[in-house]
Amino acid sequence: MGLLILALIQRGNLFADLPSPATGEVFEELLRCRNLRIERITSSGEPEPVLYDQDQDEWILLLSGKARLEIAGETIALSSGDYLFIPAHTPHRVLQTSAEPTSAEPGFTCTWLAIHLET
Amino acid sequence: MGLLILALIQRGNLFADLPSPATGEVFEELLRCRNLRIERITSSGEPEPVLYDQDQDEWILLLSGKARLEIAGETIALSSGDYLFIPAHTPHRVLQTSAEPTSAEPGFTCTWLAIHLET
Repeated sequence: MGLLILALIQRGNLFADLPSPATGEVFEELLRCRNLRIERITSSGEPEPVLYDQDQDEWILLLSGKARLEIAGETIALSSGDYLFIPAHTPHRVLQTSAEPTSAEPGFTCTWLAIHLET
Repeated sequence: MGLLILALIQRGNLFADLPSPATGEVFEELLRCRNLRIERITSSGEPEPVLYDQDQDEWILLLSGKARLEIAGETIALSSGDYLFIPAHTPHRVLQTSAEPTSAEPGFTCTWLAIHLET
């Protein structure tokens, strides 16, 4: 019974098999469960300048690298570990994502966790 | 308008102001939104041997340290970056959490992100 449940459990490693996009972002779904969707996002150094206006609430966590977002017309700078909640229909876009390694911050590629919640 | 929205946005840093519990875990709520609750969990080296049987689905992500969980009677070893989904009413408990720094893994304290979804 335990082994059967274990076989059904969805697991992985957030830092394994990271893609290396040349431009834009790579979105990978880690979990979908009822109104919840969990995604890993890996950025290149050239973010897509798309203005998002989503039906879902979103909670994002930057796990490595540095980034600048535009949220409701304002600019927010993010470093590793920073998280924020973006309510549904708050216009936002990615302005900048780090791409060059520095000795102070070896994890220079932006890796994000995004939690989407359908309203 | 942008600044007003920005003032309402809940943000923080997952690795800031980490507590240092002597025993058990410290649970801190980062977000509560409808049926979603996001928590940071910081472990000591002496986890509480509580057997959890929750009404909520749970997705956990270990961000630093190493741990062993018992899930549905089976043991799972986790390292930094490992995530897994624990369906509601799957009995589980924390068996072991790392507490000693090693040169190979400086981030020895177990820091977790837990996503709870009410069914």
